[in-house]
Amino acid sequence: MSVKVELIENLYKANRRSIARSISIVENDSTDSSELLKKIHSQIGQAYRIGITGPPGAGKSTITNHLTKYYRKQNKKVGIIAIDPTSPFTGGALLGDRIRMNEIGIDEGVFIRSMATRGSLGGLSKKAIDAADVLDAAAFDLIILETVGVGQSELDIAQAADTTIVVLVPESGDSVQAMKAGLMEIADFFVLNKSDRPGAEQAIASLQTILMMKDHDEKTWMPNIIKTIASENKGIIEIADEIKRHKDFMEANKLFIQKRELQMKLRIKEIVESKIRKQIWSESGENFLNLSLEKVVLGDLSPYHIADEIIEEFIKRKN
Amino acid sequence: MSVKVELIENLYKANRRSIARSISIVENDSTDSSELLKKIHSQIGQAYRIGITGPPGAGKSTITNHLTKYYRKQNKKVGIIAIDPTSPFTGGALLGDRIRMNEIGIDEGVFIRSMATRGSLGGLSKKAIDAADVLDAAAFDLIILETVGVGQSELDIAQAADTTIVVLVPESGDSVQAMKAGLMEIADFFVLNKSDRPGAEQAIASLQTILMMKDHDEKTWMPNIIKTIASENKGIIEIADEIKRHKDFMEANKLFIQKRELQMKLRIKEIVESKIRKQIWSESGENFLNLSLEKVVLGDLSPYHIADEIIEEFIKRKN
Repeated sequence: MSVKVELIENLYKANRRSIARSISIVENDSTDSSELLKKIHSQIGQAYRIGITGPPGAGKSTITNHLTKYYRKQNKKVGIIAIDPTSPFTGGALLGDRIRMNEIGIDEGVFIRSMATRGSLGGLSKKAIDAADVLDAAAFDLIILETVGVGQSELDIAQAADTTIVVLVPESGDSVQAMKAGLMEIADFFVLNKSDRPGAEQAIASLQTILMMKDHDEKTWMPNIIKTIASENKGIIEIADEIKRHKDFMEANKLFIQKRELQMKLRIKEIVESKIRKQIWSESGENFLNLSLEKVVLGDLSPYHIADEIIEEFIKRKN
Repeated sequence: MSVKVELIENLYKANRRSIARSISIVENDSTDSSELLKKIHSQIGQAYRIGITGPPGAGKSTITNHLTKYYRKQNKKVGIIAIDPTSPFTGGALLGDRIRMNEIGIDEGVFIRSMATRGSLGGLSKKAIDAADVLDAAAFDLIILETVGVGQSELDIAQAADTTIVVLVPESGDSVQAMKAGLMEIADFFVLNKSDRPGAEQAIASLQTILMMKDHDEKTWMPNIIKTIASENKGIIEIADEIKRHKDFMEANKLFIQKRELQMKLRIKEIVESKIRKQIWSESGENFLNLSLEKVVLGDLSPYHIADEIIEEFIKRKN
């Protein structure tokens, strides 16, 4: 174990270098990572976690920036983790990041970290949630987890967030499609950004129709639709108000604890699987696999046979 | 074990109902799945596997359809697995499928299966590769694995394919970006579809520039760029020729066996991880997790502590 006591002490004091160092530790997912996260566990749970997802170009970063400025005026500290599970085809988000850094990155009460990788989306979300824990331990009041919606990551982030916002634009249009695909389940509310563009009213009408179809009583939260023009800073206060309203509703109906319990359960599962993976494919596991490989290529045994053998060998090794 | 001998016998005879039933078994990923795949292992390895990937709307399905018709004229049997790791935002591919079925789906020498899901991309690719084994056992000569490039799935498919084709269009333009993101490594060749559109020559020029920068000697395969207008059936023979040229090159330079070995290795790893996941989260594993949950929510133990306990308990249980 090699996580220094000093590092953790300075992290609690929100020392920027220690925050950056700690996030790098969880990002590298070394043995130090689980050590660090165990140690800081008692200090987390105070920050409110906001998930923001939506298609590329919907204005997620702009909304995050303005929302951050709004919270800063109330003297709240804001941590931002921007997750970019970039496909080779959608390209990166580096330019957006540079602009962002100039606007709010120099503020001492704001900490921004981008996490991007090709492949292994699951792993990326796990690391992002670990990084949120680091910011939580550093006493940030709000943590914004921003992710582009291309696959698994928006579901993972929704599971880790206290309030999840789905940002759409009139052009992404097909809100019916989005609904069918299950965004109903993850959105605590919708933001229709660029709401001065053609098609905005139709987009809202069709969103509303689908929301109406949902069964609900007074103990069920009903997602709202907030209109914004983020580039002109319009509708940002309304977003903050809706986050507050959702938080209050969750607390009043004792849904908050329930949600955190479910979050924790999913998180433990992911940690278990990630650790087991590492243990299996340690040096001796890799060697065993390489030795067995020939038998499969020659056609004597199926990969499913070999898999069984590897699991048996792993269990034996662990005893 | 409950996979009937009959089912497998009929699968080998390429009975359509048995193929469909067998693919459903691997798709449901039940215990029968690994039983079935073990049994058919000795009968696979003859089919040639072609991976086709690219951004949405690049024309992958159209190319697959025409390529299938071309191979059918040579009396080759073609199996198609279309993988759609659909994001809530990109929508589904059902319409395309219906059109496809009308065109080539009624041909006895063609078998088409679409696999789509939200989330768990890794799992989807594994099932697609299992389904390819089923088609291989049913004596299809060629298996086309078609996937939209949004994240992990195109990498998984490239690892499972003998020849991987990356389809681009002039509008997806940013070939430099695509290259940087690592498509160089997975493309055995590129297809520039809709090559009569503006920007085609520039797209090819920039692709070529980047390909030239790659180190190579006569024993390294150099990816080509094939121009097509798939909607007009132009360039399809050229694709088939390039696949053949790649296959011959791989065999002549003994790279083929090497590639299959690597494929098998990655595949075994995925099977092991999938099996272990199932074993851990069996009923007793879930119970143990639920009992531990309270300790985490109360803040006594971190999720990382509980994860260690769950792994220990799992190892004990397996002995």
